[in-house]
Amino acid sequence: MVDAIITPNGDLDILSKSEIASLQNSSESVYQELFRNCALAVLSTGADSDDGHELLAKHADFEVDILSAARGVKLAVRNAPKNAFVGGKIIAGIRNHLFAVLRDIVFLQDQVEIWHQNGESITEMVFKTLRHAKALKPRRRPNLIVCWGGHSINKIEYDYSKEVGYRLGLRGLDICTGCGIGAMKGPMKGAAIAHAKQRVGDARYIGITEPGIIASEAPNAVVNELIIMPDIEKRLEAFVRLGHGIVVFPGGAGTAEEILYILGVLLNEKNKHISLPLIFTGPKESKAYFEQMDKFIGDTIGADAQQLYKIIIDDPIEVAKSMCKSMKKVYKNRRALDDAFFYNWSLTIEEPFQQAFDPTHQNMAALNLRKDQEPATLAADLRRAFSGIVAGNVKPNGIQAIREHGVYKLDGDASLMSSLDALLASFVEQRRMKLSGNYTPCYELVSH
Amino acid sequence: MVDAIITPNGDLDILSKSEIASLQNSSESVYQELFRNCALAVLSTGADSDDGHELLAKHADFEVDILSAARGVKLAVRNAPKNAFVGGKIIAGIRNHLFAVLRDIVFLQDQVEIWHQNGESITEMVFKTLRHAKALKPRRRPNLIVCWGGHSINKIEYDYSKEVGYRLGLRGLDICTGCGIGAMKGPMKGAAIAHAKQRVGDARYIGITEPGIIASEAPNAVVNELIIMPDIEKRLEAFVRLGHGIVVFPGGAGTAEEILYILGVLLNEKNKHISLPLIFTGPKESKAYFEQMDKFIGDTIGADAQQLYKIIIDDPIEVAKSMCKSMKKVYKNRRALDDAFFYNWSLTIEEPFQQAFDPTHQNMAALNLRKDQEPATLAADLRRAFSGIVAGNVKPNGIQAIREHGVYKLDGDASLMSSLDALLASFVEQRRMKLSGNYTPCYELVSH
Amino acid sequence: MVDAIITPNGDLDILSKSEIASLQNSSESVYQELFRNCALAVLSTGADSDDGHELLAKHADFEVDILSAARGVKLAVRNAPKNAFVGGKIIAGIRNHLFAVLRDIVFLQDQVEIWHQNGESITEMVFKTLRHAKALKPRRRPNLIVCWGGHSINKIEYDYSKEVGYRLGLRGLDICTGCGIGAMKGPMKGAAIAHAKQRVGDARYIGITEPGIIASEAPNAVVNELIIMPDIEKRLEAFVRLGHGIVVFPGGAGTAEEILYILGVLLNEKNKHISLPLIFTGPKESKAYFEQMDKFIGDTIGADAQQLYKIIIDDPIEVAKSMCKSMKKVYKNRRALDDAFFYNWSLTIEEPFQQAFDPTHQNMAALNLRKDQEPATLAADLRRAFSGIVAGNVKPNGIQAIREHGVYKLDGDASLMSSLDALLASFVEQRRMKLSGNYTPCYELVSH
Amino acid sequence: MVDAIITPNGDLDILSKSEIASLQNSSESVYQELFRNCALAVLSTGADSDDGHELLAKHADFEVDILSAARGVKLAVRNAPKNAFVGGKIIAGIRNHLFAVLRDIVFLQDQVEIWHQNGESITEMVFKTLRHAKALKPRRRPNLIVCWGGHSINKIEYDYSKEVGYRLGLRGLDICTGCGIGAMKGPMKGAAIAHAKQRVGDARYIGITEPGIIASEAPNAVVNELIIMPDIEKRLEAFVRLGHGIVVFPGGAGTAEEILYILGVLLNEKNKHISLPLIFTGPKESKAYFEQMDKFIGDTIGADAQQLYKIIIDDPIEVAKSMCKSMKKVYKNRRALDDAFFYNWSLTIEEPFQQAFDPTHQNMAALNLRKDQEPATLAADLRRAFSGIVAGNVKPNGIQAIREHGVYKLDGDASLMSSLDALLASFVEQRRMKLSGNYTPCYELVSH
Repeated sequence: MVDAIITPNGDLDILSKSEIASLQNSSESVYQELFRNCALAVLSTGADSDDGHELLAKHADFEVDILSAARGVKLAVRNAPKNAFVGGKIIAGIRNHLFAVLRDIVFLQDQVEIWHQNGESITEMVFKTLRHAKALKPRRRPNLIVCWGGHSINKIEYDYSKEVGYRLGLRGLDICTGCGIGAMKGPMKGAAIAHAKQRVGDARYIGITEPGIIASEAPNAVVNELIIMPDIEKRLEAFVRLGHGIVVFPGGAGTAEEILYILGVLLNEKNKHISLPLIFTGPKESKAYFEQMDKFIGDTIGADAQQLYKIIIDDPIEVAKSMCKSMKKVYKNRRALDDAFFYNWSLTIEEPFQQAFDPTHQNMAALNLRKDQEPATLAADLRRAFSGIVAGNVKPNGIQAIREHGVYKLDGDASLMSSLDALLASFVEQRRMKLSGNYTPCYELVSH
Repeated sequence: MVDAIITPNGDLDILSKSEIASLQNSSESVYQELFRNCALAVLSTGADSDDGHELLAKHADFEVDILSAARGVKLAVRNAPKNAFVGGKIIAGIRNHLFAVLRDIVFLQDQVEIWHQNGESITEMVFKTLRHAKALKPRRRPNLIVCWGGHSINKIEYDYSKEVGYRLGLRGLDICTGCGIGAMKGPMKGAAIAHAKQRVGDARYIGITEPGIIASEAPNAVVNELIIMPDIEKRLEAFVRLGHGIVVFPGGAGTAEEILYILGVLLNEKNKHISLPLIFTGPKESKAYFEQMDKFIGDTIGADAQQLYKIIIDDPIEVAKSMCKSMKKVYKNRRALDDAFFYNWSLTIEEPFQQAFDPTHQNMAALNLRKDQEPATLAADLRRAFSGIVAGNVKPNGIQAIREHGVYKLDGDASLMSSLDALLASFVEQRRMKLSGNYTPCYELVSH
Repeated sequence: MVDAIITPNGDLDILSKSEIASLQNSSESVYQELFRNCALAVLSTGADSDDGHELLAKHADFEVDILSAARGVKLAVRNAPKNAFVGGKIIAGIRNHLFAVLRDIVFLQDQVEIWHQNGESITEMVFKTLRHAKALKPRRRPNLIVCWGGHSINKIEYDYSKEVGYRLGLRGLDICTGCGIGAMKGPMKGAAIAHAKQRVGDARYIGITEPGIIASEAPNAVVNELIIMPDIEKRLEAFVRLGHGIVVFPGGAGTAEEILYILGVLLNEKNKHISLPLIFTGPKESKAYFEQMDKFIGDTIGADAQQLYKIIIDDPIEVAKSMCKSMKKVYKNRRALDDAFFYNWSLTIEEPFQQAFDPTHQNMAALNLRKDQEPATLAADLRRAFSGIVAGNVKPNGIQAIREHGVYKLDGDASLMSSLDALLASFVEQRRMKLSGNYTPCYELVSH
Repeated sequence: MVDAIITPNGDLDILSKSEIASLQNSSESVYQELFRNCALAVLSTGADSDDGHELLAKHADFEVDILSAARGVKLAVRNAPKNAFVGGKIIAGIRNHLFAVLRDIVFLQDQVEIWHQNGESITEMVFKTLRHAKALKPRRRPNLIVCWGGHSINKIEYDYSKEVGYRLGLRGLDICTGCGIGAMKGPMKGAAIAHAKQRVGDARYIGITEPGIIASEAPNAVVNELIIMPDIEKRLEAFVRLGHGIVVFPGGAGTAEEILYILGVLLNEKNKHISLPLIFTGPKESKAYFEQMDKFIGDTIGADAQQLYKIIIDDPIEVAKSMCKSMKKVYKNRRALDDAFFYNWSLTIEEPFQQAFDPTHQNMAALNLRKDQEPATLAADLRRAFSGIVAGNVKPNGIQAIREHGVYKLDGDASLMSSLDALLASFVEQRRMKLSGNYTPCYELVSH
């Protein structure tokens, strides 16, 4: 364990006196624990676990304090994981992540309150959060590929995701993922190798996370821009406003959540004219996975949704070529809509996809999982269902809730419940729910 | 006259939709005229006049509009002064100034309102305004010399100020002035030549102005960082918090205002431990000027104040060497106080020097210009008196007020009024009040 | 196979007309084949073979031409390996390597002739070749670690070399190797990951090769500075003049050659005062390897030589810490000797280590492999013996010679031959001689 | 006077041991005096004199030595002019010039010898000298305007040349001149102001000089790239191969030499297809000057030559607009000829314009100044005549020769001599020959 004083090398060294005081106050109050836990997650980069609860338990004596300094802030850590340090000095990338946590968790809070008071839209708030993180880069052509997929994937799938990243990187495309391991790391790692070969000096490996998940999905070592959005809904919005194309690899409940989110959004009539290429891909061994996912989508939110993506099996080069070609379409689309390249303002995202969903047992039980409604509305509630399952599986709060109140009860019509059951069962069978150990479902499906 | 659409190349191209809308709204309302006038002043850079009123009158048909664009804002100007353009394209430096006006006048307004609501101190607000203008640069050693002095100085004094700037520049010092011509331009020009010889690539020529004065003191061509503070008091605070040393050249009422400001601040017991070198200098032909100024200071705010500056006559190299040496002291002083190099937090500035003074006839008449008070308090009111005289001389509002209500009446004890009379009379005689034409005083001194 | 026109993006685009003409002439004459073969090797980066002969045979129809252009040269390739291209465009890193070949093989030739005429020392020529390749960087502190070791090592050893590279990289150290795979690639790859974590933007992965070996050891994908020295002796000199420390991993005959070279040089009395840290290291599974090597050294060139290196088994962090610490000693040593950091002028290298050794059957047979001579002299001839064996194993010319004239005969005293036999036998047994297939020795030891 | 050790900050710190030794040797032998005198000239930057002889005499005790250092060279100066130093440190720009002298005078010598041995063309040698000085910049569009004109011009002409430079600079054009004061400084100074306004960060102010003239025309303070060509003919070639357009201001014999050079070259039939815009310009007060020059050209080398330039009187904006427009033509012309932008290979320059002319009394007397020959041939000898007069006026060697052997005798047919007489007489009358004092002609015209 290491005790150290850590100095930022970026913008946080130009804070006003009251901002520093407010950081210190904040960190002593409501955000204290949040900040501490996120900081711990970041300092644990490289640990091979997805059990946030366990991580927090293991480092119960970890502490972090914000030190005031006229020239900015410093952080004092005690009992920090020693892997984050070399020769007593923190690894530069981890230091950057640590201050990204400070920036996004503590510093933004007052700001967010002001935004709320001003009645700003969530889309505005997402924009400002990303701008504050310097993630909005003007004068760059569309080239950011969001890669979604499970943290718990097998070696063949991981290698495949790496190969896809490699092929994307060779074509100069940047990568954005959810920050963690598995399909979130593979594409970044592959792209990093390709970018090195292509001598790309300013490649971006953006990891977007949120406080609830960061402890279970600590940023992998390739991430060079870490952004912590306030919750999962803002995180999903950040993905689709920032990215120019989306590739989905195999995954479990979290990936299903992401798929239902983007399909729900794209089903919106107002988004018909928006170019946002979406590809599902995996090695030939994962063919069945996507067949099942495709069937589930057809069975639940319908055939229209199935038109919104392309499935490419076992062909990384084709995925990369297709994305590369689509980037030109996205470029023209943004120009035609007079939209920015760095933020997809034109995309309409309705309230049900923006508002935070708190997966209490009550809220989970209240989800309307019936086919007799608009596909987009159903997609919204299905998305929430999967979101709750992710929480129950890996998020510290969710795990705690399950421990206290038993499994979630999900309630819907028979046909939909049957589709859902099949999908979830396959996730369990394919070990996509959890990295290690036998998986005990955190949910129970009820139909009537 | 030129009509043109002007695109920024800096940060203003990452604005949110609501920010752009708010810019447009703001610019259509209360800030519209302010923005238009400041924009006109900036586009008139290089004009040889200090009569803001005249400038505005001459360009009555000038218009500027803020255009919305997803990728940021653009400005549309109509009937703009043609000297600001080459081959139909705006000169890059002037474009930057134009967007500095947009940034400081329009964009900051909402922000300022929020600050007010939060009850932030003026010092905090000055800090945030400067940070927003990217004027706070971390990791640079103290090297910024504030140069004060008149816009209406003679050729010998101008050449002297240029030579001082040259000698400062040779020693790697940067320059900050009030933006306009005369003693505000000379030191920058001299330093620019020296910096070129020394191959200094990132030299700073900071011009700090305020909306009331910008029309009469348009930024000279050397200024490469333009900052528009909300009013004269914030501008003065910006000078002393940003700068590391101050050189005062001969000048008129405005220079007297600056001198009384800094002396009033430094007389404060709490500032005894602050290093802030202050030099009065001019060519040998201006020796009498500084003798009289020194006498005026001694006669009014006393001998203690006279200890706060050094007078160097006709020796630019000595001025530069002295400042260069003092920079090491400032460096040590900031370190000892654990203060930032880029913002002098440690300096205490009391309310009378921070609050905006509106030079109405009533306020001017109410000033307490008597010796039977604390020197610092007297300095504060004397500062206000000179501030009002500057307004009456060159600021559009002040000129208007004088036209409507006649000259200001200044009221005080006989001894002080006599000193003041002598000083002002010499300013008039030496043609320091106004660039051209015969000067008609905008004030009347009354003692009893 | 791909046909393409390739444009440089570096300095070769400022060539004079006669230089371009001379490039074209050269490339049509004596250097034509050399250039073609090296170009082919570079374009084959990533191929999994060490059989240069086979590579050349497989691409018999590959062609490369130098095109004249007023603004510089271009290269036209026909039937080039398609892996070097993405979407019809050559991968940027490979393009750089290709022009490094042009620079070092063709462009330098006339220069070298001039140097010869001027009677310049080999050390001068090595210096100029490195400078021409822009490999001499002033104003950087000692931090370049040369990593030697076999191309044909097992997975455990490879992973170990990668881990050592990772630990060196975390400490900001750069890597220089012989360019190929195995122990030449592992340390670079590990360091690249560490440098990314430490946000090192200008890390160096220098690959130094020579025309005879490049076909069998094509530069790996991490190399970002490729240098082709005229022959193996100049290559070895480039390593030790450029590098600030040396780490040796397990390897075969080539590694033995490198070890004997550096020990032979360091045994020189004149080099007693030179700091050049030398570490032999490998995983615990390779412990026996270094024991045997250490014994061989003791048995042949003696106990003094054994004092020149440190053996560290199974401790990458210790290797990195030790090198990191030694860099400070090297720094002080260079300062004390008033030597440059970028080129170790102070090191004395005697003629036997500088002059090119042509491993003809006759020259091999003539080597003096007897203990009754100076250790350094014996080291020189032992180095030559291993050099010949490498040629016979993997270099196109050597393979050809063995095919024509049978195996080399090496002749020496019984004791030394017995040591040599043991060492070589172990190389064969441990499959260090050749990547694939059964190894047929290219030598025969004779003692009398 | 100052004694100092001066360290380079550029490439000269990567010299080989033998190069450093050779520099030291060279500097102790034949180049010693040349180097010393040029170094002195550079250190005298800013002195207001054109009398090289006087300068050298005044600083008879100035010394410069080359110090060996493993990491490069250093220079030790003794009794150096103190204006070149601030606080004991040399001004950065002057330091760069000093090492440019070292680079061009001493370092290139051996190189030049090699080039001679290889029988390289003068055009090749000029190319290599410019490349070695890093003056050939690839990937920049044509924008370099060569400005010729006298060092001894009046205030009105100087201000005019500054205004032209300003207008060129506003349009993004760079300036190249002969390095000294007057018309060589004005355009640079004007352009520097404009470039600052346009925020051009990498503007070039190239000064090309030669050892014979540098002492009388020390580089002005704006020059940021100093190049010392071996002699006047190479200097003239460097101007026309490097520049993309030429502006000629009023001047004396040197300017006449330049005009005859460029006209002689452009008269060549082989250059008919080359775009090289040529403008003569001056204030309205200088109208007569250009009328006379135009008449002289018409009377001597004929009407064809008069078609090669445009005369623009009193219109700096028109000059700049015209050059700006021509740059597009030059761009197309180079593209059409497949020529480099950074070096005008396509221009044919015949031997008489390339070979060094030594203005001995004998050579001057032998010039063929008769109209009964080809205009280009006559232009070549007229050029030589003016070149000799310049030498006699201001170059140390020339002044010495005149002192020893009396004035030059120039011999030609009556008509031409009469034209020449009129031109030279006007130069004398207008005080264009020499900065100060009464001018005593160094020539006598003889016709028969």
